[in-house]
Amino acid sequence: MTPLLYIEQHRDRFLHELFDLIRIPSVSTDKTYLPDIHRAAEFLRDRLLEAGADVAEVIQTAGNPVVYGEKLIDPALPTVLVYGHYDVQPADPLELWDTPPFEPTIRDGKIFARGACDDKGQMYMHVKAFEILVKTGTLACNVKFMLEGEEETGSPSLPEFLRNNHQKLAADVIILSDTSMINNETPSISVGLRGLSYLQVEVTAAARDLHSGIYGGAVYNPINVLCQMIASLKDANNYITIPGFYDKVEELTSEQRQLLAEAPFDPAAYMAENGFYDLISEAGYTPMEGATIRPTLDVNGIWGGYTGEGSKTVIPAKAYAKISMRLVPNQDYHEISDLFTAHFQRIAPAGVRVKVTPHHGGEPIVTPMDSLAYRAAEMAYETSFQKKPIPQRGGGSIPIIPMFKRELGLDAIMMGFGLDSDALHSPNENFGLFNYFKGIETIPYFFQYFTEIMKK
Amino acid sequence: MTPLLYIEQHRDRFLHELFDLIRIPSVSTDKTYLPDIHRAAEFLRDRLLEAGADVAEVIQTAGNPVVYGEKLIDPALPTVLVYGHYDVQPADPLELWDTPPFEPTIRDGKIFARGACDDKGQMYMHVKAFEILVKTGTLACNVKFMLEGEEETGSPSLPEFLRNNHQKLAADVIILSDTSMINNETPSISVGLRGLSYLQVEVTAAARDLHSGIYGGAVYNPINVLCQMIASLKDANNYITIPGFYDKVEELTSEQRQLLAEAPFDPAAYMAENGFYDLISEAGYTPMEGATIRPTLDVNGIWGGYTGEGSKTVIPAKAYAKISMRLVPNQDYHEISDLFTAHFQRIAPAGVRVKVTPHHGGEPIVTPMDSLAYRAAEMAYETSFQKKPIPQRGGGSIPIIPMFKRELGLDAIMMGFGLDSDALHSPNENFGLFNYFKGIETIPYFFQYFTEIMKK
Repeated sequence: MTPLLYIEQHRDRFLHELFDLIRIPSVSTDKTYLPDIHRAAEFLRDRLLEAGADVAEVIQTAGNPVVYGEKLIDPALPTVLVYGHYDVQPADPLELWDTPPFEPTIRDGKIFARGACDDKGQMYMHVKAFEILVKTGTLACNVKFMLEGEEETGSPSLPEFLRNNHQKLAADVIILSDTSMINNETPSISVGLRGLSYLQVEVTAAARDLHSGIYGGAVYNPINVLCQMIASLKDANNYITIPGFYDKVEELTSEQRQLLAEAPFDPAAYMAENGFYDLISEAGYTPMEGATIRPTLDVNGIWGGYTGEGSKTVIPAKAYAKISMRLVPNQDYHEISDLFTAHFQRIAPAGVRVKVTPHHGGEPIVTPMDSLAYRAAEMAYETSFQKKPIPQRGGGSIPIIPMFKRELGLDAIMMGFGLDSDALHSPNENFGLFNYFKGIETIPYFFQYFTEIMKK
Repeated sequence: MTPLLYIEQHRDRFLHELFDLIRIPSVSTDKTYLPDIHRAAEFLRDRLLEAGADVAEVIQTAGNPVVYGEKLIDPALPTVLVYGHYDVQPADPLELWDTPPFEPTIRDGKIFARGACDDKGQMYMHVKAFEILVKTGTLACNVKFMLEGEEETGSPSLPEFLRNNHQKLAADVIILSDTSMINNETPSISVGLRGLSYLQVEVTAAARDLHSGIYGGAVYNPINVLCQMIASLKDANNYITIPGFYDKVEELTSEQRQLLAEAPFDPAAYMAENGFYDLISEAGYTPMEGATIRPTLDVNGIWGGYTGEGSKTVIPAKAYAKISMRLVPNQDYHEISDLFTAHFQRIAPAGVRVKVTPHHGGEPIVTPMDSLAYRAAEMAYETSFQKKPIPQRGGGSIPIIPMFKRELGLDAIMMGFGLDSDALHSPNENFGLFNYFKGIETIPYFFQYFTEIMKK
């Protein structure tokens, strides 16, 4: 049976297995969901065994478990290591979902659910691609799976897991689908990602909340102060004002910038699709460059004082914010976190104390475009899309990719099949049925081309 | 029996009645507590009847009910109208209370509970003072009570209630205890209060929440924008930058400022007591002037994005803040609300839409110090404290006081027995036992002196 026919015959099951996985609310940032994390891991172990893995196991770490699976057919043949993550972002704000986040629903040819794309949908394409290769007798190399449950919190336990399992994870290439392609007619391969430094800040101005009438005008208000401090982190040109922040930023040549600008981009459609009133950009760069090859500073959350119904005339003791910076080559996330912390302490006025807590981070990366694996991926897309994929620099961060390079010596091939409009991390996250099945169709080609090229 | 002996004999009951009232969580800003609002009103009606009122009733309004009570002994005698409010501020943040907010607890000679001072404790002093006058046969004038349940939300239904009840509420003076005195050795009478304009703002930058990696750098972040807008509302001298904001601000003479500065104030003790690291002030004014005779702008609440445990790399669609301004004579709160709204719309960058919703407000006031009622209050304090009370301008707002003047033609005497350190509107609100019983002792003297002076 051909792989395409196998997909056709098992289409419904491929979808409903994914739905069963999505129904497990495996949110990693909130400990309440720990039992679901374990259920999701066990679910994947069982599906890997069914798909044809010789070994599949749930391996404990200091944090959430890793699901490992393998089918080793011949040590002389190349080995592909598949990476994915089964944890998801929190679903809130719940009231903005049109259908329940953990009950997948198909509308307009898309699966709507938390994790539909990131990364359950994109990861499960690989499990099904593996099944196709095994069941149609077309698997011609060794396969390993490493599916983690901490990606959305910065993969804190993964470095140790990699260090302790060099031999188990030995491979010729690592592939993953956790990025996007340009649009359904324009396949692309991600060749760079931004890094991340994510911190929480706390501003304290008093030992207790205060009546704003009695104290207002004499005391520092920690919310006003926090707003002033945050506002001062960018200047009128949208440059980040932290001293040293840009020192190591890679400046692309005009040729490189032109190549990246070839990706189709329609600002009016982009704005209409997302409900933007205007786009922003650093002086000297386009908005798309701002979202890909330039570093950022965004407040991801802010809170303080009374946030309930009606009014309360309070000056709170404390105010808080979660602030993250996307980093580009060759910024170092520990160094940037330190620069931020020192600067934020320095700009605090005399009337407050500031606490800065780093949450997590990851290094920015670029991956080679002249490798055999990249060539195999190109050929796989050409076969399934009838089009050569465009290399693309992504704005998001996958902190584990530099980790793979460092610990395992492996470059990663980022075969994203999602779209930027899939509302990752947002209410109504979705993943096109076209994209899910196109991924399942394309991935086996990669295995075949990669094995062929490596044999030569 | 003398009033002092009566207090001594009924001390425990006076306390436990107040405790029963405090146990009713009559929070007016949150509709969840509406049944408690009604329970509190009925409780007070019953206590007024027990204390000796001829009539006491719960009167419905468009909002929360007013408790009205009266004892009219002779139309030829003067009439005192007592005002108070039985609604309280929300108790949150609950985790910062040392004991449950609606279970009054005595520690260090103070009653700790939401409403212990504001205004259940201070209002109930008047109910007990009335009881003493009746039961010891020393009541020599007519008494009316008007106890409302919407003070903490700006008394929206009170103007209509006053308009519809001119005759019922006719009196020679209105007295209330909803302000503070300087300290337990330094009695004071409030002769001015600030007004208030309280608004909520909403900044929208997109139709949905966004992944900060995919979109960050190309799009407006509504939290960053809100912070910038809020930061711009004050300049480096702590002046408020809204055009026209100061146009009508009363500038006090240096003599007036000197008189007010006579109130004892120890900055070091003030800072230590509240855990302040520093005080703030407008250029040209002291911190105490900032808290009393100068207008302010404070953020009372801010929220947006992810505020849960851990991290979420989101750029939210919207961010929100509650912002209030304390006003001084002769600022008009509707005019200031309009100036704020127009300015906040004007400073919004192209990438966002701003919605401003006024919550409530009130006009600033000054009350006369040359009236017979003020003289009677002075004499009452002199008798119970053996000291002449200091006239004091307060920083808080009681929007109903200008309303009484306008609708009923009555000046108010603000006999506050609480302290600024009572943590009004904050966790661990408290009210000294000394203060509660000193109020109960002082108020009957006011009735006696006022009647005597008015008869002359």
